[in-house]
Amino acid sequence: MKALVYHGPGQRSWDTVADPGIVDPTDIVVRITCSTICGTDLHILKGDVPETVPGTVLGHEAVGIVEEIGAGVTSVDVGDRVLLSCISACGRCRFCKQASYGQCLGGGGWIFGHLIDGLQAEYARVPFADNSVHKVPADLTDEQVLFLADILPTAYEVGVLNGAVRPGDVVAIVGAGPVGLAAILTARLYTPGRIVAVDLADTRLQRAHDFGADVTINNGREDARALIMELTDGLGADVAIEAVGVPATFELAVDLVRPAGRVANIGVHGKPATLHLQRVWDRDLTITTGLVDTYSTPTLIRLLASHHIDAQRFVTHRFGFDDFMRAYDVFSRAGETGALKVVLNRTGDPR
Amino acid sequence: MKALVYHGPGQRSWDTVADPGIVDPTDIVVRITCSTICGTDLHILKGDVPETVPGTVLGHEAVGIVEEIGAGVTSVDVGDRVLLSCISACGRCRFCKQASYGQCLGGGGWIFGHLIDGLQAEYARVPFADNSVHKVPADLTDEQVLFLADILPTAYEVGVLNGAVRPGDVVAIVGAGPVGLAAILTARLYTPGRIVAVDLADTRLQRAHDFGADVTINNGREDARALIMELTDGLGADVAIEAVGVPATFELAVDLVRPAGRVANIGVHGKPATLHLQRVWDRDLTITTGLVDTYSTPTLIRLLASHHIDAQRFVTHRFGFDDFMRAYDVFSRAGETGALKVVLNRTGDPR
Amino acid sequence: MKALVYHGPGQRSWDTVADPGIVDPTDIVVRITCSTICGTDLHILKGDVPETVPGTVLGHEAVGIVEEIGAGVTSVDVGDRVLLSCISACGRCRFCKQASYGQCLGGGGWIFGHLIDGLQAEYARVPFADNSVHKVPADLTDEQVLFLADILPTAYEVGVLNGAVRPGDVVAIVGAGPVGLAAILTARLYTPGRIVAVDLADTRLQRAHDFGADVTINNGREDARALIMELTDGLGADVAIEAVGVPATFELAVDLVRPAGRVANIGVHGKPATLHLQRVWDRDLTITTGLVDTYSTPTLIRLLASHHIDAQRFVTHRFGFDDFMRAYDVFSRAGETGALKVVLNRTGDPR
Amino acid sequence: MKALVYHGPGQRSWDTVADPGIVDPTDIVVRITCSTICGTDLHILKGDVPETVPGTVLGHEAVGIVEEIGAGVTSVDVGDRVLLSCISACGRCRFCKQASYGQCLGGGGWIFGHLIDGLQAEYARVPFADNSVHKVPADLTDEQVLFLADILPTAYEVGVLNGAVRPGDVVAIVGAGPVGLAAILTARLYTPGRIVAVDLADTRLQRAHDFGADVTINNGREDARALIMELTDGLGADVAIEAVGVPATFELAVDLVRPAGRVANIGVHGKPATLHLQRVWDRDLTITTGLVDTYSTPTLIRLLASHHIDAQRFVTHRFGFDDFMRAYDVFSRAGETGALKVVLNRTGDPR
Repeated sequence: MKALVYHGPGQRSWDTVADPGIVDPTDIVVRITCSTICGTDLHILKGDVPETVPGTVLGHEAVGIVEEIGAGVTSVDVGDRVLLSCISACGRCRFCKQASYGQCLGGGGWIFGHLIDGLQAEYARVPFADNSVHKVPADLTDEQVLFLADILPTAYEVGVLNGAVRPGDVVAIVGAGPVGLAAILTARLYTPGRIVAVDLADTRLQRAHDFGADVTINNGREDARALIMELTDGLGADVAIEAVGVPATFELAVDLVRPAGRVANIGVHGKPATLHLQRVWDRDLTITTGLVDTYSTPTLIRLLASHHIDAQRFVTHRFGFDDFMRAYDVFSRAGETGALKVVLNRTGDPR
Repeated sequence: MKALVYHGPGQRSWDTVADPGIVDPTDIVVRITCSTICGTDLHILKGDVPETVPGTVLGHEAVGIVEEIGAGVTSVDVGDRVLLSCISACGRCRFCKQASYGQCLGGGGWIFGHLIDGLQAEYARVPFADNSVHKVPADLTDEQVLFLADILPTAYEVGVLNGAVRPGDVVAIVGAGPVGLAAILTARLYTPGRIVAVDLADTRLQRAHDFGADVTINNGREDARALIMELTDGLGADVAIEAVGVPATFELAVDLVRPAGRVANIGVHGKPATLHLQRVWDRDLTITTGLVDTYSTPTLIRLLASHHIDAQRFVTHRFGFDDFMRAYDVFSRAGETGALKVVLNRTGDPR
Repeated sequence: MKALVYHGPGQRSWDTVADPGIVDPTDIVVRITCSTICGTDLHILKGDVPETVPGTVLGHEAVGIVEEIGAGVTSVDVGDRVLLSCISACGRCRFCKQASYGQCLGGGGWIFGHLIDGLQAEYARVPFADNSVHKVPADLTDEQVLFLADILPTAYEVGVLNGAVRPGDVVAIVGAGPVGLAAILTARLYTPGRIVAVDLADTRLQRAHDFGADVTINNGREDARALIMELTDGLGADVAIEAVGVPATFELAVDLVRPAGRVANIGVHGKPATLHLQRVWDRDLTITTGLVDTYSTPTLIRLLASHHIDAQRFVTHRFGFDDFMRAYDVFSRAGETGALKVVLNRTGDPR
Repeated sequence: MKALVYHGPGQRSWDTVADPGIVDPTDIVVRITCSTICGTDLHILKGDVPETVPGTVLGHEAVGIVEEIGAGVTSVDVGDRVLLSCISACGRCRFCKQASYGQCLGGGGWIFGHLIDGLQAEYARVPFADNSVHKVPADLTDEQVLFLADILPTAYEVGVLNGAVRPGDVVAIVGAGPVGLAAILTARLYTPGRIVAVDLADTRLQRAHDFGADVTINNGREDARALIMELTDGLGADVAIEAVGVPATFELAVDLVRPAGRVANIGVHGKPATLHLQRVWDRDLTITTGLVDTYSTPTLIRLLASHHIDAQRFVTHRFGFDDFMRAYDVFSRAGETGALKVVLNRTGDPR
């Protein structure tokens, strides 16, 4: 089969590799019909993720058709259309038992395109299938559910639910890239009073507005803290969601919330941040960090089906699988190309 | 009357000052019968709390008898014995309405011995009396309830409840001074599986053991993280409570907890700490900060009355009011004197 | 002044009565500008509420202007426009301190038009003003906020929040009268997947549909349980909200929910219901009852101001104060007149 | 092998039956070393549980040694000592994924000695082993963990946790049989202020006292409601736990709680109860029902190991497996024999 293979920092190619097969009785093999590229894939390509070894097929977001099932698999069948997501779950360890699948101790967690071959390929072996895949309702297309593989549950669980967004809240979302936009989209499920998007790029802020932000702040030229204080009688936002992953944005998020407010970090950080405890020790803050667990995926599928979420609006570009190299190119130059999420359809046509 | 007056950094004296009287209709005047000294009073004396102006009577923890009540006071009467605590509450602002009295916007919060005259005095004016004082049941002595004025609700609310201690948990308490000991005492209300106390001083660790710590670690000579990992199958503590207030202990607390663990900061910090987001962004941590609200005081009074908490064990020294200067001296040299909490009784005799 | 006075079962009149004045220092007097009639007022008129004595001015929902304030009032001023609601709060008792104002032990709770003179009058004395009234933002009209006096917080707190409605849920609302419609409106703040309204009258179901119900079931001729099972793969609704107040509808609500589902009773009941424990003892149900507390009123005001709720759609008829008798007539014959909520404006014109 | 077989209402015998073997790849076979009898077994013998067919081996509580494992089992090995409990979990259905194992839709739930052969036998086939058994720490004996198979997690989850017992609460436990005693034992993990046991039999109340009840009420000759009102300033208990299973005790439990109180039903009911909504519609009650899920079993094992629970105190009689018929006889005449829980050890000697 063909697959997008990581060959060390800066190197990837669309190679012919061996077809995957069942290894463990809890495995299935899936024929991928639709896939996408994540910012994390670019991190791996930069060499920032040393545990991903050269030769690994990349990708952790896809939809496909079950081709083969292991002896121990009971809840999916050959021919089922399934969503494959960034998190796999052994289903048996203490963390899986409390739905913290991202912390799985039994061989799951984030493994696709990281510790084992991933989903930017014609076929994939999917471990722990009974606990890790989601059947796709017939009336939803591949593209409609594709972003439930990572970006939407990440923003929803780690941002909106950890941040405990409530009706009427003022929610500040720092960073208006794909994850920040997904946070806007899913925060709206709780009808906040105002969503305030903060970013350095006006193009991203325009998108934030289109996705539902009520107020946008360019913190390259505006004072985000002062503006949010003005909006909130000097108290601060009820919730701040960090969706960038650098110290400055985390520190800003902490500065934006009111006494007894919540700060939910979604960003993937490479460096320590400063926590100004001398200012916040007595402010009753709750700060959370987290990796997505995908426990909310069934709920999000239901909300897609009932038209309460439109996940397809993330799609800016579409390619066939044989254009995978070009898709990476377009996605990695998002600043120029305006790429938000690129969709790869097996045949080139969406289904 | 006589009162302990702050006269600027390093200066205090037991002075004769004007008797307090009713100013607002929601005030009462209380004849103090029992008082104590807090570590925060020593901070003020060091000059670390600039908003406390010279001439202020210190102290925010006392028991006394109501001497006079304002026209608008309805729930206490002259002659009632009451607990006066570190937090006053206007009862009307948005924070008071959600029991976040420590964040009161209406003139309450921590005011005694900070923004207005305090409770190390023969008499005190007590604002917002209906929302801020607690009647003492007849079968409890002054000394039994005295530590419900600050240290016990602080440790319970900001440490144990914010940290969401649950039966069976491994709870690491970093710092075994009075507040850390109060955290041990109140954590036990939730029957954790193991309480691990971490401190640099063996004498404090011995006390931690006496108060109920199951394991003690001297992190001057032992590796606290390694020992806790050993106790927890390599995962970490369920909850870590910071009870010191310096960057190193906060950073240690973050290092001690398992994935999906909780870090509850009680310590009063004067400097920023480093939050190693590059290590914890994906660990599902919850970190809380907070000032005590005293919403738990009625519960703690009930638990004292039912003998589930013994708060008197904090008392190491007793003085009469006329020995206030000496009491400060003994308390401020706790390292030598072994002082934990000193009690000041009006007449010199406990009641 | 003029006021609508209850003179015993079946008897009411628009009388001239003495003007109210300040009695307690925590009182204010309000010049009512806008009022309405509640189903509960009709219950009183039927003689179902024996503690309401003849001579009482009816009404517990109004907007007005502060005319006079007591000596102990600090948070409202003469001239402020305020919302007066069905629940008053002493602010000091254990229930008020946990925001259970409806259970107030200090003289509050539901008192207007019940235990003291109410708000269907030109003026009203308002006890515990600091804890019981809400300032109205300048950009909201009287009519826009009027239904926050009772129906909206009742449906939201006792139905939606007690029922813990969550995004994606199937929510069954039994009863599509004013309170059921308010439950539909406020349930939507949590983006349920589907709202199913159940009622015996097609006209009410049509309104339920207009207010946002996705599915309507006439349980006079359809099998509500069977239809909901069909919609939910045979499991049942996630939440059922009872908004009628008779045994049959409560029992239906219990029958409609899935294992681990929630049943939130809003209805005012006059008779016992049967709880089929032999069927539900092992189904992990949570059943709640409740009186509104109005703790959510500030949130709902914010959601009105941000246009997330349109409360005016309840208004079907408008009258001047001098038409109060006719307004009662129209409201009490809702079946014929189609009345949902009638608004009484002092001058006859809405402001 | 030998096993205790149900042969229809009133008929049981200690028979020789075929040895069980692996059927599904997720099965294990366990050599039972310790077992017990539950009140539910007596119900089956009365013919009250029609879905249990004659020929079924009874029992759903045991400890044993793994003898054989299916091809798909990964987390237990031959030779492991394991606790087998009343609830099995497929681990894959929506209820298992939220730890509501008792509601398992995939073939689990309460199956042992009910829908499939049970654990009062020399060997047992155990389905869904990876999700349904618990390894026993080496330092705990069979008897110490045996009651974690049903009675302790049932009382803890369905009574104490559903009832949200909190430090300082007054907890009324209606029924002082084995489950009520287990509720007393596990309620104490949350340090309630007072535990009040209510029962008709003084012998049971004496045991309740021994297990930790602070107050006991014989509601055959005392007015339980009046006494609890006296203890609680006329408000009622914070939590009432029903541990009997008849209408009168459920109705009493509802009558005993304060406004905003919680009623947790544990009892297995055969008949409907009356819910006096006309008295409680406005009292902010939360009423829960539930079947045990055993999600708390790992926590309870930890609390046994740390000596915070002593589960062995339930043991009143011990027998060898060959005395199973006599053990049933003793247990079923608990009134005369004083039996609380009887333990069956394979060899007759506890280990």
